[in-house]
Amino acid sequence: MNMAIREAIKAYKLGEVPVGAVVVKDGEVISKAFNETITMIDASGHAEMLAIRRACEKLENYRLTGCDLYVTLEPCMMCLGAILEARIKNLYIGLLDYKKGACISKMQLHNSSLSYHKLNVFYEESKIYKFLLQNFFKTLRNK
Amino acid sequence: MNMAIREAIKAYKLGEVPVGAVVVKDGEVISKAFNETITMIDASGHAEMLAIRRACEKLENYRLTGCDLYVTLEPCMMCLGAILEARIKNLYIGLLDYKKGACISKMQLHNSSLSYHKLNVFYEESKIYKFLLQNFFKTLRNK
Repeated sequence: MNMAIREAIKAYKLGEVPVGAVVVKDGEVISKAFNETITMIDASGHAEMLAIRRACEKLENYRLTGCDLYVTLEPCMMCLGAILEARIKNLYIGLLDYKKGACISKMQLHNSSLSYHKLNVFYEESKIYKFLLQNFFKTLRNK
Repeated sequence: MNMAIREAIKAYKLGEVPVGAVVVKDGEVISKAFNETITMIDASGHAEMLAIRRACEKLENYRLTGCDLYVTLEPCMMCLGAILEARIKNLYIGLLDYKKGACISKMQLHNSSLSYHKLNVFYEESKIYKFLLQNFFKTLRNK
């Protein structure tokens, strides 16, 4: 999760909503990414999406069976969909998203009729990341 | 929708699940794409995702405000999420997906607590596309 937070800081520095994600398999880091929606001019440029795309490329497989994903902020509907499409095994979340969270906060779509793959979801609040995200939005509001 | 079906045929020829998508703004085609999950080795390589990414690139905007999306098959959770992220105005669907459809069949996530943007969804069954998709899966089963 610390590595995912370091990714989020890269997004922060670019003025992007700071979210970071890391794909891990058997203890090895496969890919990492941060939110680059504005930088890449891509509505789908969320950290999880980019980390998954890069992991697929690296492992030369469009299924990431046996891989885990660490993400600083609870995934939205799009990212959770990609996580299921990629067949991620375990998802570790650093902070809940009460606005768009599709795994715990608003809905639990991986446990819904839309799910076709068993995904384990783990949540432990990261106080460091919470401070970072709150600071980002505070700075944004004061601009 | 005919253009989206022609895109789906390109996927069919590559052995990909045949789905096609077209982004339109003010009567002008902005982007088109077909499902390339296997070809691009990308779990998120669905037609809608690629069409949205290309449209963002072309319009140099990560928001596709005022754009419509035509897609042959009802979007899944991931693609509907991207459609909402991109602020697509109208979504036109050519066939329902009873397994993974997140807009009509299984759930209507654009009308759920997860939605933060008003999306209009229109559905009219395309018999041509239905035949194409059924034929694809029939051939696949016989392989």
